[in-house]
Amino acid sequence: MRVRDELKQDALFKATIKLVNEIGFVASSVSKIAREADVSPATIYVYYKNKEDLLLSTYINIKQILSEEILRDFDDSLPIRDTLKNLWFNMFTYISKHPEQFQYSEQFANSPYCSLVNKADLDRYFEPVYRILNKGIEQKIIKNVSMDILATFIFYPIVTLANKRLCEDFQQNKDNIETAFTLAWDAIKL
Amino acid sequence: MRVRDELKQDALFKATIKLVNEIGFVASSVSKIAREADVSPATIYVYYKNKEDLLLSTYINIKQILSEEILRDFDDSLPIRDTLKNLWFNMFTYISKHPEQFQYSEQFANSPYCSLVNKADLDRYFEPVYRILNKGIEQKIIKNVSMDILATFIFYPIVTLANKRLCEDFQQNKDNIETAFTLAWDAIKL
Repeated sequence: MRVRDELKQDALFKATIKLVNEIGFVASSVSKIAREADVSPATIYVYYKNKEDLLLSTYINIKQILSEEILRDFDDSLPIRDTLKNLWFNMFTYISKHPEQFQYSEQFANSPYCSLVNKADLDRYFEPVYRILNKGIEQKIIKNVSMDILATFIFYPIVTLANKRLCEDFQQNKDNIETAFTLAWDAIKL
Repeated sequence: MRVRDELKQDALFKATIKLVNEIGFVASSVSKIAREADVSPATIYVYYKNKEDLLLSTYINIKQILSEEILRDFDDSLPIRDTLKNLWFNMFTYISKHPEQFQYSEQFANSPYCSLVNKADLDRYFEPVYRILNKGIEQKIIKNVSMDILATFIFYPIVTLANKRLCEDFQQNKDNIETAFTLAWDAIKL
């Protein structure tokens, strides 16, 4: 039973992402998502309260996968610059492995649905990242500015650079990613 | 006649932005946009080939307004840092004055419609910005990296910081905007 449940939830996860990326949030009805996932609409309501709950859960799920990927081989015994560079490269790897998840989450973050997110729920997945940034501030290696501003320069640039529509000329090879990291580090370092 | 035409086009511009922000691109049909603008659907086809053309023209129009606002009082005789800081503040002012245009353009840039944009059409509005960045590179004040990477650190951070959904804690006052500019400048300066 449990395996079958997980398969169904995985099918719903993939179907939601595929359909929303193709036709948008409004047009993606519960019945269309059910058809795409090859489950009955009633099945969706076993797992999710409604369409909003399904869309939000899909987003949270994506963020959880992202956090696991960027924290892969996380080592905070390295110099802070190196720890952050590893996170930076891991995030590019995640986006190239899961472009469809990345597209969904970008659309979600720019949609009215984003107001449904409890930010604290997301933040706990990224707790080690906040910890390393705070350590850098304490050690006077990183500028003592708000987490919002730090994230704007050390993580959101990846979102921009990986977005083919915004940065059509940016080739995601090791040298270019490393160059961009130099700018990010120069922005936040004291 | 001409004044009446401009009024109709302005009504269509505003109606397209309002409706897309409320219900999304897919659900925003030509007939709904016409109703919102209080014109007949036939009128839309006088000015635009189809819905895609209307959505794209709205986006281009927004980018033109943005470029005029950020280049307000443009003075490239100042030190490059100061010229860029003026652009930076102008962009925050634009976003606070026209949040609905900003929301539309962010959604558009993250939608499949963005592939309709001819990037050269947009780039010419921002030519003075590219000119100043290139001048900075020549004078070895700004890092010699691609325009994509420079824009990622000197302009896109504003988009992130002004997005209430991403940066809920960032208060857009003069001090915070200036602090964030310091990080942007540190990123790009040589």
